[in-house]
Amino acid sequence: MNLPAERPAFQTLGVIGVGLLGGSLARAARQRGIVRRVIGVGRDQRRLDAARAAGVIDEGATSVAALRCAELVVVCTPVDRVAADVLAAAGATPASAIITDVGSTKAGIVRTVAAEPAAAAKFIPSHPLAGSEQRGFEFASATLFEGRTCVLTPTASSDPPRLQAVEAFWQSLGMRTVQLAPEEHDAILAATSHLPHVVAAALVRLIRDRERPFTASGFRDTTRVASGDAALWTPILRENATHLLATIERFGSELDRLRNALEQDDAQAIHDWLDEARQLRARCPEQGGADL
Amino acid sequence: MNLPAERPAFQTLGVIGVGLLGGSLARAARQRGIVRRVIGVGRDQRRLDAARAAGVIDEGATSVAALRCAELVVVCTPVDRVAADVLAAAGATPASAIITDVGSTKAGIVRTVAAEPAAAAKFIPSHPLAGSEQRGFEFASATLFEGRTCVLTPTASSDPPRLQAVEAFWQSLGMRTVQLAPEEHDAILAATSHLPHVVAAALVRLIRDRERPFTASGFRDTTRVASGDAALWTPILRENATHLLATIERFGSELDRLRNALEQDDAQAIHDWLDEARQLRARCPEQGGADL
Repeated sequence: MNLPAERPAFQTLGVIGVGLLGGSLARAARQRGIVRRVIGVGRDQRRLDAARAAGVIDEGATSVAALRCAELVVVCTPVDRVAADVLAAAGATPASAIITDVGSTKAGIVRTVAAEPAAAAKFIPSHPLAGSEQRGFEFASATLFEGRTCVLTPTASSDPPRLQAVEAFWQSLGMRTVQLAPEEHDAILAATSHLPHVVAAALVRLIRDRERPFTASGFRDTTRVASGDAALWTPILRENATHLLATIERFGSELDRLRNALEQDDAQAIHDWLDEARQLRARCPEQGGADL
Repeated sequence: MNLPAERPAFQTLGVIGVGLLGGSLARAARQRGIVRRVIGVGRDQRRLDAARAAGVIDEGATSVAALRCAELVVVCTPVDRVAADVLAAAGATPASAIITDVGSTKAGIVRTVAAEPAAAAKFIPSHPLAGSEQRGFEFASATLFEGRTCVLTPTASSDPPRLQAVEAFWQSLGMRTVQLAPEEHDAILAATSHLPHVVAAALVRLIRDRERPFTASGFRDTTRVASGDAALWTPILRENATHLLATIERFGSELDRLRNALEQDDAQAIHDWLDEARQLRARCPEQGGADL
């Protein structure tokens, strides 16, 4: 492992959940010389051994006790496990430790952690908008975060020096950072990430066997995110059900406008509906980041 | 222009509508030595001159009279103009000429052309499942058709030797060919191509300005086809409105199942709905082709 001459920002980084995101984080932080040592924590020692053999982490353990020297811990588990893992990490780490996460929903996690002030004092919630429909550290990429956005959702009780350190950490991986309130984050991501996932899955589901050979590149791109891991996405959709149901309503309203135009064979209305979409899409950022 | 030693299949290919598809067809047929000379017919002489200067066509004209020696004519105009262009090409070409098209809808075109038996005798309807959201011959690619599927929709009155020749033509561009009835084609493409386009546009439309910075790679892929040209897509959606409205119903039913599961917070039902989609998507062909 090559280290730059200068002292890295953290001697020891803990990563709970060494999958695609956790693995990418470990690779990116090591390659950029931001950490000297990465300790992976997971449930399956054989997977952790494989991640160590692959050079993704330096040490793998099934207990957070391994994080007793970690200065920074990033929780990369599915969103229904993040809060519990943050609490466990808070109990295992030094008093000065910083804990963050990569969860795609924020309000529920923030609420659960806030009930434990000692843990909340160490925790800065994050959501890097970077990911892929692939799973496992085997697909980990040191460049996954470059040029993307990381949303931080601190609260009034968040520790300012830790907030600054977590922002600097994501920036050091090549991300730009932005702060949102947890509920605001969840409402926005319901529209920009969770609804597209649901829509892609619905498109795949309605195709009949005899129709499938006639799916082509447009269909493949439109439905790529539907290949995502159901074990990761089920808790995301459940956590964010209220906002997601509201965006499904908005989606239905847009579809109804087109449906009416089709039923009346209103060429101008159909054209305008499509052309407005074309123009609006051109305003979407070229880079941004995420499936998760 | 390099020609293989062997005699090309056609001396003169006519392409009506020299855009992305027509231009790609011209490039592909010339590069593979299938035609000796390509005559482009369009409405704008300056665009045709530019296409000639770019080496896409050998000659450009604004009248089908230029097709008087064409052995094969491929109509590549928007679907609401295809039938009229087929009729015009039928009147301008030699008695032995073969005419085909690349339209994304088929039943309406076949019906209109069938009313003119002399034109119908020359016409074999095609839909190569290859395309892109880009427009203009500037984006023409000689490899656009390789490995993709071309659907032919002959009727009982289609001329067997011409059908064979058109199949051989698409195959010589690297496509596999399959035959469907025109109505069957339209019903299938409503689900595999036209609905994904509509859904992508609806997703883009519902995003609010303050949400747009948080769209990322998943959103970009899911909505790529919404960048397509409204002038091409409006006639496609109008021609295929009946089938499209039926697939919107099917889409709504799938979405309702998830909505119910979310409202009841039924983790198993949400997981199964997502995981079935993941499995079904893995059965979609790797290559296929088209947005159009």
